[in-house]
Amino acid sequence: MSEQALLKLDEAELRGLLDGRWANIRERARDVIQGEQFAPVHGLSMEDHRARTLKQLMALAETGMPAYGFPESVGGTDDIGASVVAFEMLVADMSLMVKMGVQFGLFGGAIKALGTDEHHQKYLPDVMTVALPGCFAMTETGHGSDVQRLRTTATYDAGSGEFVVHTPDESARKDYIGNAARDGRMAVVFAQLRTPDGEGGLIEHGVHALMVPIRDRKGKPMPGVTIEDCGPKAGLNGVDNGRLWFDGVRVPRTNLLNRYGDVAADGTYSSPIENQNRRFFTMLGTLIRGRISVAGGAGTATKASLAIAIRYADTRRQFTRPATDSRPEREVRILDYLAHQRKLLPALARTYGLHFAQEELVTRLHELSKSEERDERAQRELESRAAGLKAVATWHATETIQTCREACGGSGYLAQNRIPQLKADSDIFTTFEGDNTVLLQQLTKALLTNFKDSFGDLDQLGLARFMAGRVFETVIERTAAIPLIDRLIAAAPGRDEASLYNRGWHLELFEDREKHITEGLARRLRRAKKDGSDAFEVFNRAQDHVLAAGRAHMDRVVLEAFVAGIDRCGDKSTAKLLNRLCDLYVLSVIEEDRAWFLEHERLSTARTKAVSAAVNDLCRGLRPYAVRLADAFGLRDEWLGAPIALGAEERRQEVQQADERAERPKQEQQA
Amino acid sequence: MSEQALLKLDEAELRGLLDGRWANIRERARDVIQGEQFAPVHGLSMEDHRARTLKQLMALAETGMPAYGFPESVGGTDDIGASVVAFEMLVADMSLMVKMGVQFGLFGGAIKALGTDEHHQKYLPDVMTVALPGCFAMTETGHGSDVQRLRTTATYDAGSGEFVVHTPDESARKDYIGNAARDGRMAVVFAQLRTPDGEGGLIEHGVHALMVPIRDRKGKPMPGVTIEDCGPKAGLNGVDNGRLWFDGVRVPRTNLLNRYGDVAADGTYSSPIENQNRRFFTMLGTLIRGRISVAGGAGTATKASLAIAIRYADTRRQFTRPATDSRPEREVRILDYLAHQRKLLPALARTYGLHFAQEELVTRLHELSKSEERDERAQRELESRAAGLKAVATWHATETIQTCREACGGSGYLAQNRIPQLKADSDIFTTFEGDNTVLLQQLTKALLTNFKDSFGDLDQLGLARFMAGRVFETVIERTAAIPLIDRLIAAAPGRDEASLYNRGWHLELFEDREKHITEGLARRLRRAKKDGSDAFEVFNRAQDHVLAAGRAHMDRVVLEAFVAGIDRCGDKSTAKLLNRLCDLYVLSVIEEDRAWFLEHERLSTARTKAVSAAVNDLCRGLRPYAVRLADAFGLRDEWLGAPIALGAEERRQEVQQADERAERPKQEQQA
Repeated sequence: MSEQALLKLDEAELRGLLDGRWANIRERARDVIQGEQFAPVHGLSMEDHRARTLKQLMALAETGMPAYGFPESVGGTDDIGASVVAFEMLVADMSLMVKMGVQFGLFGGAIKALGTDEHHQKYLPDVMTVALPGCFAMTETGHGSDVQRLRTTATYDAGSGEFVVHTPDESARKDYIGNAARDGRMAVVFAQLRTPDGEGGLIEHGVHALMVPIRDRKGKPMPGVTIEDCGPKAGLNGVDNGRLWFDGVRVPRTNLLNRYGDVAADGTYSSPIENQNRRFFTMLGTLIRGRISVAGGAGTATKASLAIAIRYADTRRQFTRPATDSRPEREVRILDYLAHQRKLLPALARTYGLHFAQEELVTRLHELSKSEERDERAQRELESRAAGLKAVATWHATETIQTCREACGGSGYLAQNRIPQLKADSDIFTTFEGDNTVLLQQLTKALLTNFKDSFGDLDQLGLARFMAGRVFETVIERTAAIPLIDRLIAAAPGRDEASLYNRGWHLELFEDREKHITEGLARRLRRAKKDGSDAFEVFNRAQDHVLAAGRAHMDRVVLEAFVAGIDRCGDKSTAKLLNRLCDLYVLSVIEEDRAWFLEHERLSTARTKAVSAAVNDLCRGLRPYAVRLADAFGLRDEWLGAPIALGAEERRQEVQQADERAERPKQEQQA
Repeated sequence: MSEQALLKLDEAELRGLLDGRWANIRERARDVIQGEQFAPVHGLSMEDHRARTLKQLMALAETGMPAYGFPESVGGTDDIGASVVAFEMLVADMSLMVKMGVQFGLFGGAIKALGTDEHHQKYLPDVMTVALPGCFAMTETGHGSDVQRLRTTATYDAGSGEFVVHTPDESARKDYIGNAARDGRMAVVFAQLRTPDGEGGLIEHGVHALMVPIRDRKGKPMPGVTIEDCGPKAGLNGVDNGRLWFDGVRVPRTNLLNRYGDVAADGTYSSPIENQNRRFFTMLGTLIRGRISVAGGAGTATKASLAIAIRYADTRRQFTRPATDSRPEREVRILDYLAHQRKLLPALARTYGLHFAQEELVTRLHELSKSEERDERAQRELESRAAGLKAVATWHATETIQTCREACGGSGYLAQNRIPQLKADSDIFTTFEGDNTVLLQQLTKALLTNFKDSFGDLDQLGLARFMAGRVFETVIERTAAIPLIDRLIAAAPGRDEASLYNRGWHLELFEDREKHITEGLARRLRRAKKDGSDAFEVFNRAQDHVLAAGRAHMDRVVLEAFVAGIDRCGDKSTAKLLNRLCDLYVLSVIEEDRAWFLEHERLSTARTKAVSAAVNDLCRGLRPYAVRLADAFGLRDEWLGAPIALGAEERRQEVQQADERAERPKQEQQA
């Protein structure tokens, strides 16, 4: 393996494979997102950037791309998968990506998912054209992650047939709301719904969503609505995030998005879901698309940064290689340094794996949205997977883009080379649509119940119930290409005989680690419970263990998706190359966590040392393909926008070399 | 150890300990850097920010603080240590920090170090008052890390008695030069010095520095000088970085900073250092203060971010702890979560260690600058240590500030909360004053020669010479508090009997790891050489090993400084607390690299698992002190500037709690 044969890379085949099921959507984005209007910019003032982003959004609306996510009943194409893929392609300016997500995904998506046909007909056509710019007003200053404890109230007044929407204090103001500071006219407001109990008291029904106008057509805040600008942010300054307060704002009863809970004119509450907790999580579950979109968007930002950094590293030279018998002295391309390969190539490999995992996830979301019957378990699995993938994909983005910044040196710090903006814009992705640490815990809790039961979010009651249980065994369920993966595992040789590059061995190893960590965690939680310890304390003390379980699960999910992706590749030689990339993914994950494998006697020390050596070998072997592998994602040159990635460095070096050849005589003339 | 007794923390004692030898300078900075003029700002346009930074710099000049770094002969106080400490305190706006570094440290520092008395008298008084704003024009677009291959030329014309400074092409333009785009009037230009050989040819003398006027008093570029703005950057937009081209620009012979190389009127070159390579590295070595300052500045940015994130985490609450018999339901402070402690507290511990190591380094620099005789070996050690500390301190800053951003959630993304700017401003610290990856390799190469010989920068000849050598043994030299550390190690029990908290065992373990990695590397390089392999390839294939050796060395250096620092603490109880913090530093380093300790049979799996458990215990035990430990660095509240760290969160929660108590009746009135 140490010296690897050169392989042919079929670029068209690879592009087709990566473009995947929604290739036409990607191609459409490549067609549409062109020209000055959509080109990357930097150095705009916040106000100018916001104005530009709104213009872009309107232009985008005219292309029909927003229609993907909406029902046919209102002129949409009802293609959820397409809507997620379209979102993730908007990397030329991530402010547009996020603004689009707010308008069509969050605002429009909430009306679609939580409203009923009347709401769809009334609002969605204007949402799609951006005639009605809107907000998704969920997060409050006091409660971001813990949505169930939002404190804005919507109290039904049977006398007038209206809801009174109210912000009791600063903690309950809506915060970080996209589209609020400048453009939004309407907001889907999440609030604690209360109806009169007929005896002067109130009945609480938990969090529901209502349509609340926040500005008139002239842009003036509506009576009782106070709006504040969140001001400049680290990035995404084309998006106008703001704060909202409601002072006894009255809206008609029909403004309640009433798919999961309705209030009759007389104030009687009704819902198809009896249990308040279940109703809450069902409602939240319908909004899962946003989280999946964020994972995809993070992926594109990562790909763009890697494309820039790898192209630059492939041309940039620094320090000379001394002359040998066969070669003259020459400066070394920085991607020829092992340390530089180690910075960029394992990250590229993981980016491929995450890409395939994202495609799997979008497909599931899409299929589920099409299915007639509601499959609770499949929905729960989708939500858990989305939580996990969002966490690992956005962390990977943050880490990789940071690495790319450093890998490009001073050039990577200049705004003109795009990386600063990609870094700053994507930085919040680890936080919004769910804090990663919270999400990874949600995933682990779902693993502990094998998706059968729900803990709710970080609900302690469900946890206590779990801890009081008896036997626990992880059920490892394949997430992709089941027969293939079963076959590979079955063919894997015994632990120590397997080649380091045996895929069956890899799959088995990842599966075994996940199982061991999860079961160990279950035992630990139950053992502690028996001692009568406080459920919160027990869980809290195991929190690093909880997060490790989530990560191990996602490593396996990503690997299975990678394997399934390669299996779809129609060109043998290209597939072979992708297999090497997959080896690099697997072995760099093992290397990173090799302490675990040693501590649990899964690998010998000789074997872990061999893994590190193999990572080096693979880096060296993949180096000649790095540029093409990074380019295969098909992000247009003008989306990358960075001169260092678009030939500036080559041109400079050519002139330098010509000058160096001509230098001496010129110098003599000068002196 | 699991349940730790509460300890008294003597805040004044701790402040004194951390303020250290240059406490008066820190106090002076706390006095001076106050009020609106110096307060953190955000959202300024680049032009406004630059104007403000220049104003701040002039104001700073009036305080006399810049005088620290300059000779008494020109009115300075010749206190190098003070100049470094003053630099690092300017965290209220890091653009000012860097602008100050450019003007006084790099520009003034180069004149001081490379020039002779005539230059000092002529320029330094105006440098100190900023009457002469200037640039340090070393880096070129084509060569940043590889300074020896700079391509700007300074060719002596004996006829006119002038140097002709020339930029042959785009690769040789000066790039990223601070003070160049807007304010600089003079530049110290690094160029390849050439003198006529009397036969129509030229003799090359390597890189030298000259004073070259770049703008007239009105700010117009001088004839032959072209200036371009680098434009917006990720951060530090108050600093006007630019590019410079010289088209046959003529300066008088006396503009050569001639301490290490001079040209007589007739063109004869002379130097106190015969060997060109040695001369080059000697000249570079005199500029080491810049690198040390950057390590210090990165430290302050880290401390500021941690102070913000830890204060916020100490007050911010999210998710409820379920009611138990003894306690009502309540929301949990996020710093009470283990995962959050793990994010912030080991980083705080390492920040302490780096702080003490920085103080050691500054002291060495200071002492060396005072010594009459030049000690080559001590100088070489200082340079290596500076390279290593700059690398680990700036990587630690990047990683920690990123973590703080996430730990503060959406609040951490708002410009008003400072973290975005601290992140963006400090991001380039891993690159400027030497790319970290390059620096860490330099350190390792010095370790391989036990500081006796020099490889030069990444010089292949020296490397080949090393590889051809025979016996190699690391000489572990204590870097701080030698008798104490020897005593601790001597008292350490055997490997497996030692308590996890035994300091002697820690010291021995770190020392042993460094020795093993370095000696293994030496053997590997020499073995390969014997096989007749190409020196470059051999070294490149071992690059991850090379970097690991540098890291292991720095872990030990930081630990020894930490131990020595605690030894200076006058209060027993506070020292005990610092020892716990030091335990957290050591054990989290071991945990991170536990795979190495397992692979090399230094620790058993039982022991590494115990280390992870101990890290958790220490986090929990240190949590009650976290805010005071972060505050002990004495960064003024107004420097932090972030509302979330200055009481906004507490006030909000108090109102919320009052509202929650009063809520029900109010709701009833509304409905």
